[in-house]
Amino acid sequence: MTDASQPLEFYGYWRSNAMYRLRVALNLKGVPYREIPVDLDAGEQHAPDFVARNPMAAVPALIDGDLPPLTQSLALLEYLEERYPEPPILPADARGRARVRALAATVAADTHPLLVPRVRHYLTERGGFDADAFRAWVTHWVGQGLVGLEANLAHSPETGRFCHGDRITMADICVSGLALIGRVFKLDLPETPVLSGIVQRCLAEEAFARAEPSRQPDAPKG
Amino acid sequence: MTDASQPLEFYGYWRSNAMYRLRVALNLKGVPYREIPVDLDAGEQHAPDFVARNPMAAVPALIDGDLPPLTQSLALLEYLEERYPEPPILPADARGRARVRALAATVAADTHPLLVPRVRHYLTERGGFDADAFRAWVTHWVGQGLVGLEANLAHSPETGRFCHGDRITMADICVSGLALIGRVFKLDLPETPVLSGIVQRCLAEEAFARAEPSRQPDAPKG
Repeated sequence: MTDASQPLEFYGYWRSNAMYRLRVALNLKGVPYREIPVDLDAGEQHAPDFVARNPMAAVPALIDGDLPPLTQSLALLEYLEERYPEPPILPADARGRARVRALAATVAADTHPLLVPRVRHYLTERGGFDADAFRAWVTHWVGQGLVGLEANLAHSPETGRFCHGDRITMADICVSGLALIGRVFKLDLPETPVLSGIVQRCLAEEAFARAEPSRQPDAPKG
Repeated sequence: MTDASQPLEFYGYWRSNAMYRLRVALNLKGVPYREIPVDLDAGEQHAPDFVARNPMAAVPALIDGDLPPLTQSLALLEYLEERYPEPPILPADARGRARVRALAATVAADTHPLLVPRVRHYLTERGGFDADAFRAWVTHWVGQGLVGLEANLAHSPETGRFCHGDRITMADICVSGLALIGRVFKLDLPETPVLSGIVQRCLAEEAFARAEPSRQPDAPKG
């Protein structure tokens, strides 16, 4: 168990969408943390000395003493919620929690895993995809993810100013991260008015703004 | 909220690995349930009358009265754990829960989303993959998933007879489902002795055996 008097330490990377989710949650909860950058574009996650410390070779990872680091952003969001319950990023009722977790998983489990560097490497190095074909792939899956989310958000009486009622939850955190991918890569995406309004409200919040990739110390300047 | 006196009703499909996870959890907890089959191979999940009832067009989905069905297997495993806490499928401590959720997500969020029908359709219809190329894709990602899991399981003092200590958790449920994919498709996969031992112990349990795709009423005979 991490020492509560010390900042939480993560292996992170400025551009990691999964680390973005954790940064937002940490900021919302006011939890001090420190990121140790691992350059995923340079493949540093596969370096033997890193793998020795972090056998899953995954980022983000929460360093936890001599035990193997804890990985997977959905698992880490739950961990933060358990250890730092205020303000909550899950609703108080079981159905609400299930809906929020499902929206979060639609991003983090259905959509984002198709967009990560290891998939890009496979498709462009072994799958015969050129840059345009990979861009079409990314556009397709981000679009599918957004359309699925919009269907849920637009059809449910549970949607409010944010994905679930009027309080920020882990659904908003994950959805905003996905929208940022669309923005950064200037993808041509379907209209999703309910979702776009929610994302706009999220990104206006300081906790989200401070988490943006371009504002991280290891991001390239300019 | 679903009525506790009635069996839980899911949109499911015999072959769905995500539905398999839920079946195991339901069996372990002794929760009565009913599956309404949606033929994913025939594209029934996209039929307008189905989408009208289930806007995310996703299976498995837990039907919940007039509210939109609840989707995403990880969210639904958490929901089952909250509503039917005995026997638990998460450890009692926060670090343990985070580790188990991370192992589960390594399957359900990192690996399985690359193997689902919609990805196969994209790669074979738009991506120029023939059957051999798609098989290589599946073999690669299942192998990567198993190797990552083995690294975690083999390096952690927290591993026991099962993924986390000596009790079955949602990690075992997800890991067994991934191993079944390797078995059903007779994939040529790397050796993962720690994981294989755990899977063998899981599959010997009645709750896992009854959940197997081939034993579902909507599975093809023989």
